[in-house]
Amino acid sequence: MKMTSISGKTAVSLKRTIGSGTEEQRKTVSTIIEEVKKNGNAAVSAFTKRFDGADVADLRVTEQEMKEAYGMMKQSEIDILKSAICNIKEYHKRQLASSWFYHRKDGTMLGQKITPLDSAGVYVPGGTAAYPSSVLMNVIPALAAGVERIVLVSPPGKDGKLSPGVLAAAAELGIKEMYKMGGAQAIAALAYGTETIAPVDKITGPGNIYVALAKREVFGQVDIDMIAGPSEIAVLADQTADPREIAADLLSQAEHDTMASSVLVTDSRPLAEAVQKEVDQQLERLPRKEIARQSIENYGRIYVAETLDEAVSAVNELAPEHLEILTVQPEALLGKIRHAGAIFLGPYSSEPVGDYFAGPNHVLPTNGTARFSSPLNVTDFQKRSSIISYSREAFSENAEKIAAFARLEGLEAHARAIESRIREED
Amino acid sequence: MKMTSISGKTAVSLKRTIGSGTEEQRKTVSTIIEEVKKNGNAAVSAFTKRFDGADVADLRVTEQEMKEAYGMMKQSEIDILKSAICNIKEYHKRQLASSWFYHRKDGTMLGQKITPLDSAGVYVPGGTAAYPSSVLMNVIPALAAGVERIVLVSPPGKDGKLSPGVLAAAAELGIKEMYKMGGAQAIAALAYGTETIAPVDKITGPGNIYVALAKREVFGQVDIDMIAGPSEIAVLADQTADPREIAADLLSQAEHDTMASSVLVTDSRPLAEAVQKEVDQQLERLPRKEIARQSIENYGRIYVAETLDEAVSAVNELAPEHLEILTVQPEALLGKIRHAGAIFLGPYSSEPVGDYFAGPNHVLPTNGTARFSSPLNVTDFQKRSSIISYSREAFSENAEKIAAFARLEGLEAHARAIESRIREED
Repeated sequence: MKMTSISGKTAVSLKRTIGSGTEEQRKTVSTIIEEVKKNGNAAVSAFTKRFDGADVADLRVTEQEMKEAYGMMKQSEIDILKSAICNIKEYHKRQLASSWFYHRKDGTMLGQKITPLDSAGVYVPGGTAAYPSSVLMNVIPALAAGVERIVLVSPPGKDGKLSPGVLAAAAELGIKEMYKMGGAQAIAALAYGTETIAPVDKITGPGNIYVALAKREVFGQVDIDMIAGPSEIAVLADQTADPREIAADLLSQAEHDTMASSVLVTDSRPLAEAVQKEVDQQLERLPRKEIARQSIENYGRIYVAETLDEAVSAVNELAPEHLEILTVQPEALLGKIRHAGAIFLGPYSSEPVGDYFAGPNHVLPTNGTARFSSPLNVTDFQKRSSIISYSREAFSENAEKIAAFARLEGLEAHARAIESRIREED
Repeated sequence: MKMTSISGKTAVSLKRTIGSGTEEQRKTVSTIIEEVKKNGNAAVSAFTKRFDGADVADLRVTEQEMKEAYGMMKQSEIDILKSAICNIKEYHKRQLASSWFYHRKDGTMLGQKITPLDSAGVYVPGGTAAYPSSVLMNVIPALAAGVERIVLVSPPGKDGKLSPGVLAAAAELGIKEMYKMGGAQAIAALAYGTETIAPVDKITGPGNIYVALAKREVFGQVDIDMIAGPSEIAVLADQTADPREIAADLLSQAEHDTMASSVLVTDSRPLAEAVQKEVDQQLERLPRKEIARQSIENYGRIYVAETLDEAVSAVNELAPEHLEILTVQPEALLGKIRHAGAIFLGPYSSEPVGDYFAGPNHVLPTNGTARFSSPLNVTDFQKRSSIISYSREAFSENAEKIAAFARLEGLEAHARAIESRIREED
């Protein structure tokens, strides 16, 4: 793992160039979307045959299939799912926004009405990336928001079936509408609907480059969540931290993806050197060591700062997806952290604690976008409407000003709309 | 204005096909962005010369220019600006989100930290669309959020100057950093920075097709607000409403843009007919009557429903940007409205009241996107970070479950990160 000394002037960055797809991929996606708009389920089935190698006559997952999948899980696994769901629900219900209003002395009422989206579609990847935790993290915020119709889609294996873990997680959350479809064809079916699938208002969830391109293309027709980049972690540590634990946490990001980035920022050179050694040793013993090694070699970095303040500045420059603070007093640094998706404080808040279990969402801004983006949230499934109820008193007091403002902007009909209401008796 | 009877089955829609630009326009925008990335201020000045016909050696607006513009305003205009600012600030400060946290019995602390964005750039169109209200509506939410650096850009006239109204509004809000630049070159300079302009984290504000395409292209590098479509109004009225006022309100939208859409939905045929007549009469007397006429002819519509419930359903299908409710008891219908950007209740809440003055934002979702989008909001300039501080007790109680969940997803290094923390003594 490369080590770099930073002074105030050294630029640090987790940024990776994320492919926005080739011209050919974009064309493929456009074609798929057009086909699904035109031919509905038949097109989806044909693409499923072609891309997933599966014959799926009926796209909808049956109640029987849900039950079977649930039956395939061990009781201990179901118990873990239940505990995680309980924690995630407890956290997310606190994000729920409420409508509010207030009255001015002149009798005017102003406010903000909160309404859940009517429907949401969640994309869950297939194959080895078919994570039950993706189901929990995308569905629970929508449930907490009060979205009435939540639809899950996931590409089937060659046997035409979905991952039992994914189905079990969906069943545990009470999801009733699931389809065996993936790729751009699933995104198109969710955005535009087919003869049996009603369109949704918002699509969330991770996917491969085709899914990402399709989400970008249907954006505007429906809302989408962010386009997620490869995962990242930054660990901010002083000499009191345990190098063995830090190395294990860095590697837990690195095993995700060869493009994942793991960074240590510290004011302690001895710690930096100890972590460097530990990473090498632990790496050798990992089943996914080839992925982790590439990630560490290309996107892993140890930054050694002169002071803790300098280390904090570097972290803010990185704006990492995950940030662990492993210092003698982690809470004391919290106020100085401006940019991070999720912040893990102290030795028992290993990043995987948050991936599945603690409660906060694992859908987080990557690639420096924590400067302006946020974790997936209940309010992402709620929308606001402004409320304006002007009283007669307020109107007659301000009508002239409002009409004058309209004329200042050259909009005469706006001024006349106001003046049409000025009564003789006012 | 066309009139249509609707039963439960008639589809209603405000949707217009909004151009996503020609291939040539997209290419032009890409070229401009690349040029500005490469040559900075020199490129911006060259494009300003070419597109705005203005020689602008120093892009930055001087204090002197701000003062001069302020001096050109009448005191009555400044007073109106001040009143509007006061109202808009009063409303928006209630949208401010606060950090929160909670403790579990096992000592775990979880929370959500709210941080304002570091910087925001506001685009204000030039020429006849240089509205002081755009300045207020984009800047005040960012100010309320606590954004430290707010940058305004606007294209200069041929004389190299900006609109005095825009400068005065900016001065009144205490804006110190303004640049005389517009179009895709301004968006590129804000997103990537130049030798004298530091990049911003988010860009908001309306603009022409080149501005919209540039915003789409830099999205991801920075955050952007929505891409606004042409304006719309739906009026939901019963027989108690005043046809003269409704017609005036419909026309106030229509004068914006030939693509603007004005719709009346009512359960009263006599009202429908009276409004139809009033629109024709009032239209003739408008200075912008050619714009308004085209808008009314192409995108104006009166829908006559059998019942008020049916009318409400139609409004929800439309999901209008602006909705006026002019019925005997407007508040009673509020609970049934699911989709609308801003809702105006009762006879004194003419839509222009909200455009400039009442307090809520005038940047609103258009073209049916109120199904899933919201007005511009203070929270659009704040971001969230999740906080996870696990206690030793919570960790030792759940470590096995968390490790097992990680293995269920096939991520061994995640499990080991957890296990590296299990102490002998636990």
